[in-house]
Amino acid sequence: MDALSILISSLTGLPGVGPKSAQRIAFYLLQHRKRGSQLSRALDTAMTTIQHCKSCNNYTINTLPICHLCSNLDRDATTLCIVENPTDIHAIEQSQVYHGHYFVLMGRLSPLDGMGPQEIHIPQLEKKLQSQQFKEVILALSPSPEGQATTYFLCDLLLKTQLPELKITQLARGVPFGGELNLLDVNTIGSALQNRASLPV
Amino acid sequence: MDALSILISSLTGLPGVGPKSAQRIAFYLLQHRKRGSQLSRALDTAMTTIQHCKSCNNYTINTLPICHLCSNLDRDATTLCIVENPTDIHAIEQSQVYHGHYFVLMGRLSPLDGMGPQEIHIPQLEKKLQSQQFKEVILALSPSPEGQATTYFLCDLLLKTQLPELKITQLARGVPFGGELNLLDVNTIGSALQNRASLPV
Repeated sequence: MDALSILISSLTGLPGVGPKSAQRIAFYLLQHRKRGSQLSRALDTAMTTIQHCKSCNNYTINTLPICHLCSNLDRDATTLCIVENPTDIHAIEQSQVYHGHYFVLMGRLSPLDGMGPQEIHIPQLEKKLQSQQFKEVILALSPSPEGQATTYFLCDLLLKTQLPELKITQLARGVPFGGELNLLDVNTIGSALQNRASLPV
Repeated sequence: MDALSILISSLTGLPGVGPKSAQRIAFYLLQHRKRGSQLSRALDTAMTTIQHCKSCNNYTINTLPICHLCSNLDRDATTLCIVENPTDIHAIEQSQVYHGHYFVLMGRLSPLDGMGPQEIHIPQLEKKLQSQQFKEVILALSPSPEGQATTYFLCDLLLKTQLPELKITQLARGVPFGGELNLLDVNTIGSALQNRASLPV
């Protein structure tokens, strides 16, 4: 395969990019070489320097084992917000309503896709719950069937930890059913955070 | 800016990729590092090794000054097909109806966008017309107003060359108006090539 075919096949299959879009992007980049070279460097840097935070599992650069959110002493260390993906943190941070800590599952329970407790980093979460004294855990998972199942699984897990006076909450039912958390608008996420409801119902 | 923001901003603005899609692609690649590194290498190779063919202006790897279509002696050297973009060559080749040579304008006349005769490589085309004895020139430009304007401009130019018995044709009117040539299906392109009409009308 020549360099062009390799480039097109490397682009094909990215989220939202089919064979025709891949071809369009490849030819666009060949006509804008500077952008292409810049994207190549950005990818290379990101792939080699971005790692998971040892504390919250969010993305961080590998020179810092702990991400900028976990190491920020101004944030409320007694509140934990559990999300599925780093993009969800980005969406929540933009709403400017939440100032506590995070934990990223990197997915949700989905046995048919091979996503079990190990895959969503439950052991790492349990370690974090033991080492930090949280007063509240907010379960901010996607309002999908798998997200709901994961919420109930995490609620059970938190009830078993027997932490005294631990408040377990989930996002308010302002979140529309069936969507992806990181695609919601800032106001919906903000009001859902402000109206979060106690668990178990 | 951190590595992740740089990656997202490098992806934003590619054809069909907005800020949300760029974010989705960036996080997808971080979860599939092998694909990300492979894409980075493919981009780097493509950006540094792909150049324009000295004869037809199509893309070629820089170790070969002449592309594989121009250097193929089995192709009919008496017929020239002028297209706007390398993607159009790809579409025409897939129809398997045409076996002659190509010339890529890398755009079309559009004075408002600063696309004049120099920008669509007319001097290089004139040189090619003088050095090769073509019997037919097919103007296979997009069926858009700018494509039509470019067709008439090229027709005038070809009439002025005073090549004896030069046949000037354009794609048959099977091509729907207002579309992009490289988005058409193979059968439409094939039948439009077979029914190409003589110019001037």
